[in-house]
Amino acid sequence: MSKTVRVDVLNIGDELLLGLRQNGHLTYLGRELARHGGAIHRNVVLQDDAAEIKEKFLESWEASDVVITTGGLGPTVDDLSREVISEALGLKLEFVESVQVELEERFARLGRTLGANNLRQCYVPEGAEVLVNKHGTAPGILLVKGGKVLVMLPGPRSELKPMFEEQLLPRLQEEGMLSSEEQYLQLRTFGVPESVLETRLRTFLKSYQGVKVAYCAHGGGVDVRFSAEEQSALSIGEISQIGEQCMEYLGDDFVCFGKDSTEEIVLAFLRAQSRSLAVAESCTGGLLGSTFTDVPGASDVFQGGVVAYHQDVKIEHLEVPEIIIQQHGAVSAETAVAMATGIAEKFSADYGLSTTGYAGPGGGTLEDPVGTVYFGLHSPIGAWSHRVQISGDRNVVRERAVNISIDWLRRKLVKYQLEEAFSTVIYSMGAGI
Amino acid sequence: MSKTVRVDVLNIGDELLLGLRQNGHLTYLGRELARHGGAIHRNVVLQDDAAEIKEKFLESWEASDVVITTGGLGPTVDDLSREVISEALGLKLEFVESVQVELEERFARLGRTLGANNLRQCYVPEGAEVLVNKHGTAPGILLVKGGKVLVMLPGPRSELKPMFEEQLLPRLQEEGMLSSEEQYLQLRTFGVPESVLETRLRTFLKSYQGVKVAYCAHGGGVDVRFSAEEQSALSIGEISQIGEQCMEYLGDDFVCFGKDSTEEIVLAFLRAQSRSLAVAESCTGGLLGSTFTDVPGASDVFQGGVVAYHQDVKIEHLEVPEIIIQQHGAVSAETAVAMATGIAEKFSADYGLSTTGYAGPGGGTLEDPVGTVYFGLHSPIGAWSHRVQISGDRNVVRERAVNISIDWLRRKLVKYQLEEAFSTVIYSMGAGI
Repeated sequence: MSKTVRVDVLNIGDELLLGLRQNGHLTYLGRELARHGGAIHRNVVLQDDAAEIKEKFLESWEASDVVITTGGLGPTVDDLSREVISEALGLKLEFVESVQVELEERFARLGRTLGANNLRQCYVPEGAEVLVNKHGTAPGILLVKGGKVLVMLPGPRSELKPMFEEQLLPRLQEEGMLSSEEQYLQLRTFGVPESVLETRLRTFLKSYQGVKVAYCAHGGGVDVRFSAEEQSALSIGEISQIGEQCMEYLGDDFVCFGKDSTEEIVLAFLRAQSRSLAVAESCTGGLLGSTFTDVPGASDVFQGGVVAYHQDVKIEHLEVPEIIIQQHGAVSAETAVAMATGIAEKFSADYGLSTTGYAGPGGGTLEDPVGTVYFGLHSPIGAWSHRVQISGDRNVVRERAVNISIDWLRRKLVKYQLEEAFSTVIYSMGAGI
Repeated sequence: MSKTVRVDVLNIGDELLLGLRQNGHLTYLGRELARHGGAIHRNVVLQDDAAEIKEKFLESWEASDVVITTGGLGPTVDDLSREVISEALGLKLEFVESVQVELEERFARLGRTLGANNLRQCYVPEGAEVLVNKHGTAPGILLVKGGKVLVMLPGPRSELKPMFEEQLLPRLQEEGMLSSEEQYLQLRTFGVPESVLETRLRTFLKSYQGVKVAYCAHGGGVDVRFSAEEQSALSIGEISQIGEQCMEYLGDDFVCFGKDSTEEIVLAFLRAQSRSLAVAESCTGGLLGSTFTDVPGASDVFQGGVVAYHQDVKIEHLEVPEIIIQQHGAVSAETAVAMATGIAEKFSADYGLSTTGYAGPGGGTLEDPVGTVYFGLHSPIGAWSHRVQISGDRNVVRERAVNISIDWLRRKLVKYQLEEAFSTVIYSMGAGI
């Protein structure tokens, strides 16, 4: 494909504008199209209003190669997409008997009878193809006209997603609108702010021509997507080679290619070394454990942990010596390390990871204000602590603390692997990584 | 306000169109505006492209009362919103010294130096007000011009949300664009599917005229919003009375008015009775504890818990008798109750809540397939178990299990309060609520 195909997405439905539902369709379609060399140029979310739908549809149809609409195909009077868009294109609606048969079978299976309003769902614009809906009543519609493609998808996510994957993606590839190869390389980084990463990569990319870069920051990490610029002849293989160079260039800040999470990387690393992990959480309150157990198959590495939300719990169940808490406070480097060691011993785990801090809104001291979190790590070759200062509300502090603590463990594992090769043993405590 | 204020929202940023990020701003702004009598008429998501931003901004500015843009205020060359929109309105950009001072202070605190590119963030269109950004570098912009309001908000959620709540909402109320009273009544329910709730409420609402109802299902709960139909003269006071009737009508399925979460309700209930709570989690892996500790001030009720991800942990740290696991299995009603009692005793808590189940993708038996979760509850007046069968992937099972277990505890607390009044003591074990 010589040029990027322009796709416009129109989401029709009041519930998105009233904040009753997330517009997950945009995210899903954006990612899937980008993966296959398409790009959403513009997204418009509209009310169920005939004049507005017609106007915005024609605007997009004029300017795009592919227009995808979602929603408005249901059986109720609010559902206008089918009629309005057919009219806008000057096309009649045709009755498709196979749709009626499918609807009747579906209703029979559910023990319901087909209503007159459902018969509206059997009409499609003349010349259009029906996309079968296995998970709901509204069939999708695909129309190729004047070198352009119109796609109308049903609103519910559970209907849209399989219809896209099983029927629409192959059809768009057939029509030459999407590539059958993946079109970008994703490289994950952690711990470098987006603006700093951009500056660093600008230097790196000076040696390469025709590479397009997109950034996405989320929760302390930044994903970088490399693809070929429109005018460039770079193949995906050449892009991959540049990615490998970039990995070297970024050192420890590089997490992985693809979409694995930091926790998946850490668990895979520990699994490969037959090591186990347990966690002791104070301010993160279970979120750290929950993040590890989000990963299917975590249980062969992750033993579990203790949520020590009350100070007493730290002393009783993690065997943090009372004198450490008295001398240094419950939120301190010393307590964090004692918690990590305590949980590792208690759960007979090789690694213990701990968090203690002030998530807010209350708490904090002059030296350690709200947003201060200490991590502790107990490992077979030593124990460390790490202090971070996170700005944001309670949930931001907690989520960020979990992400940073896992990435800190990842960095230690990478470093440890290198150092193990030199048979050195390190014991340090301090703020450095 | 006689008519609904028309608000258009323009989100600027490639990352939304590439599927790199959810458009949470639309959902957040849609809900908050609706709460105060505003309504998003149209939402457009645009690339960082000057011509496109200008065109779509002017279209919305022409047709709307309020235009809100998000994103494109950062320090990088991609960030065009400030310059392009000022130009579209024929306004010069003015340097605001107070912004520079704040930026310098912020950078000093973080130990970084202000870059030349950050100075771009000190400019606003002439006549505009600065919305202070306490959580990031890009200040927001508010401009009142010709009876219309332009608002430019930064892209990151953690910056946008406090700016909206603390600064923008009061200013839009001052400008008469939003009402200072909430315009709808929200009633939260749990445990009733949306379609069933709709049928039940259709019967209930037959006695009332002019009430508009909107539903929003999420994670096992359904929020119901009551408001007055446009032609109706119902006051918010009358709507509230209908809400009270509806609360009675729904019984235990009613959770609260407003937006408190089930966990907030449970913690408030326990706090009022000076009771404490600890959790023992297997399949939910920390998510239950994390959900309780999401609530600010949870620590006066919530003691903490144990994540028993390995079977051994259940036996060792929760003192579940080995014979119970041998006879009934780690995923069973008996083990769930033993875990709940174990954690309550270990943490000296009045209530112990536990989860054990098969979140998938692996595991499960013929009788208890993937998706089966048992909850255990230990309370001062008895212990119970509850079995649920959840369909969906691993994350759906875990999240739903957490929500249902908390709602189950809520129902028990409501029931227990009533029963306490009759001085009865109950001990039961089984599948019923």
